[in-house]
Amino acid sequence: MHDWPADEQFCPRYHHAVELIGKRWTGVVLRALLSGHQRYADIRRAVPGLSDTMLSERLRELEAENIVVRHVLAGPPTRVEYRLTDKGQALNRAVAAIAEWAEEWVPAP
Amino acid sequence: MHDWPADEQFCPRYHHAVELIGKRWTGVVLRALLSGHQRYADIRRAVPGLSDTMLSERLRELEAENIVVRHVLAGPPTRVEYRLTDKGQALNRAVAAIAEWAEEWVPAP
Repeated sequence: MHDWPADEQFCPRYHHAVELIGKRWTGVVLRALLSGHQRYADIRRAVPGLSDTMLSERLRELEAENIVVRHVLAGPPTRVEYRLTDKGQALNRAVAAIAEWAEEWVPAP
Repeated sequence: MHDWPADEQFCPRYHHAVELIGKRWTGVVLRALLSGHQRYADIRRAVPGLSDTMLSERLRELEAENIVVRHVLAGPPTRVEYRLTDKGQALNRAVAAIAEWAEEWVPAP
């Protein structure tokens, strides 16, 4: 159990991280990537309700954050893959902790 | 290390949880609460840049999610405290994991 000191200072890095992970659709895209999905079409299939526009935008943002790297594989057909960087893989623990909390505390919809 | 099966199904409870925690300002308010801040004024002071309107709204949302309980203490002066429920306390691990990732991977602003 992490112990928070009561006088802990505000941390802008944490602030950035939590809102990056929790941005609309980003959390579920990250979980799909951590589950091993790399191909654009597979990620899309893993997240029902997510539009192409939104998925592309989120992947671009994750690329800008150096969380995924985009690879274009020569075809035909040309394939686009998104691979987690070390920084992206390191999100595994945070995503797992949120998932475990959700399983215990969030009622099924 | 949590191992994600490649065929893991989409989880609406995780989806709800990650976007709840990552909603604008919610993550930092949660961290302030987990650090032991309970009084409205203390929470506000712990989060620079957060307006009264936004803090009230976020606390109401956390109350609706049964993550905090609002207590009004008889005065004078009347004091309002927000105490984490068991569900709220259980977020400690997820918040700590995000903070640790941020410390390691997010550059200082």
